[in-house]
Amino acid sequence: MADSRPALAIDIGGTKLAAGLVEPAGRVLTWLQVPTPAGLDAEQLWRTLDALIGQVLERAEVAPDALVGCGCGSGGPMDWPAGLVSPLNIPAWRRFPLRTRLAERLGGLPVRVHNDAICMVAAEHWRGAGRGRRNVLGMVVSTGVGGGLVLDDRLVEGASGNAGHIGHVVVDPDTGPDCACGGRGCLEAIARGPALVQWAQAEGWRPDQRDATAKDLAGDGALGHPIAIAAMSRAGRALGIAIASATCLCDLEVVSVGGGLSQAGPLLFDPLEESLRVHARLGFARNVTVVPAALGQNAGLVGAAALILAADRYWAGD
Amino acid sequence: MADSRPALAIDIGGTKLAAGLVEPAGRVLTWLQVPTPAGLDAEQLWRTLDALIGQVLERAEVAPDALVGCGCGSGGPMDWPAGLVSPLNIPAWRRFPLRTRLAERLGGLPVRVHNDAICMVAAEHWRGAGRGRRNVLGMVVSTGVGGGLVLDDRLVEGASGNAGHIGHVVVDPDTGPDCACGGRGCLEAIARGPALVQWAQAEGWRPDQRDATAKDLAGDGALGHPIAIAAMSRAGRALGIAIASATCLCDLEVVSVGGGLSQAGPLLFDPLEESLRVHARLGFARNVTVVPAALGQNAGLVGAAALILAADRYWAGD
Repeated sequence: MADSRPALAIDIGGTKLAAGLVEPAGRVLTWLQVPTPAGLDAEQLWRTLDALIGQVLERAEVAPDALVGCGCGSGGPMDWPAGLVSPLNIPAWRRFPLRTRLAERLGGLPVRVHNDAICMVAAEHWRGAGRGRRNVLGMVVSTGVGGGLVLDDRLVEGASGNAGHIGHVVVDPDTGPDCACGGRGCLEAIARGPALVQWAQAEGWRPDQRDATAKDLAGDGALGHPIAIAAMSRAGRALGIAIASATCLCDLEVVSVGGGLSQAGPLLFDPLEESLRVHARLGFARNVTVVPAALGQNAGLVGAAALILAADRYWAGD
Repeated sequence: MADSRPALAIDIGGTKLAAGLVEPAGRVLTWLQVPTPAGLDAEQLWRTLDALIGQVLERAEVAPDALVGCGCGSGGPMDWPAGLVSPLNIPAWRRFPLRTRLAERLGGLPVRVHNDAICMVAAEHWRGAGRGRRNVLGMVVSTGVGGGLVLDDRLVEGASGNAGHIGHVVVDPDTGPDCACGGRGCLEAIARGPALVQWAQAEGWRPDQRDATAKDLAGDGALGHPIAIAAMSRAGRALGIAIASATCLCDLEVVSVGGGLSQAGPLLFDPLEESLRVHARLGFARNVTVVPAALGQNAGLVGAAALILAADRYWAGD
């Protein structure tokens, strides 16, 4: 008989910490989130997460031993599968032993920790836009550009659990901007939100707010601001080139695009499609479809739960 | 007890047809090859292959029922796993039912047909430069630029058996040459042998022979001809960019480069390394190594045999 116990799912991000219970079929039963506190040390931050877990279990009236396991997504980089996390946007944790600490907290329950972009593609493949498809690239276009790969119906780990880094596919090697990775012309250097804002400002965009974001830029684009439109088009074009390369290399069926910037709609997706169709010309590559991510803000929790609830496809660690 | 029967391996190329027997551990026991005849129709070409198979079996003194199966690599494109082949360089076969015909010829023996570049990566992963590594890209740089992917220790098929088309990763979207696929700036459009020759001739290279090849160009480069050196460097640089993109996306450990152009040595591999190291900067991506393919002219046969002899890793078809 199938195990009917829910999994505890946790999503660690620079903006929020979320925890919830997810039933075997992938439905989120109950969940809570809190803003990620700033200015804390590693242990103080851990206590925030510890308390959040306690609240979710209390609200759901379940004890840890009624759970099948705990899956956790976190910003990277991390040592995988050991689960030592150093999230770029959470300076308090550097090689923090998240997997071990969660296992201790949960009385030895199976705990699995993976990159949040990996959890996103797992969620989209398991229960979202990639459901029923065997070859899916999931992308998160936001402050950075991350991703994860499901090929032949299984999550691809790669040599160090880092497969899926579409943000560092090269789209403009000669004239592209320097990338934070040390390279040049990476997709992320062009299409990450802050890079768009910077580019638009250099072109003369003068937003009302001092700390304008890519969301403001997309808003101005929707109102017809030509520089804002050009900025989104530039990002879309870069995304299309990288997706074309990934499609040819991996014979993808579906690319699911999530993250804040994906909210920009046709401003981003129309130029993306145009450049994708220029470059993805082999017969098999023409069949790829690019869609906005289907799961909303709970994608992180659903994907974290998939590490436990659909481990045959989404977990290859120990 | 392990099956000790050999596999029949076949390699169908535009230049030669090869067939051999391969023992379970991957050693080629006996083999024969003939130039691929031109100007024949589909059935005449089949009879050439049929005779070659007969000669190999006769020489080895084995009957088809002493074989464990037959693996066959062929130039693409093809319908996979159905094995209807339409090799670009063999006009006589268009959707030729190679898999079915081989199965009939061999009395119902299991027969598996895959792309020759896929067989090359299977060979390199199984018994060549990628042995013992779990994440390997195999490349064939020749008249075209093909490839195959092994990720998490298994051959990646993708949606239509076409994963591994590194030749159509985009390396110069703005100023790159048009590609035969219909796209622009693909790796293959820059780094395929005939493109190198064309570029060098446009730059003023005047080879002694009228029908000069990339091999002649590499030869002149080795003698210090500056245009020939620049041509190899241009190809190496494009290869380095594409390999950097593939490494970030797939978290590769080893890239094995075979095909005629890989014989050019440092003329090609030095600029390749240089551009790879400019673009593959993430911590995990720096660990990738690029090596010449370890298996020589028998790689095609070894890889074809792997479709049968190591099917758990290299065959996901029916």
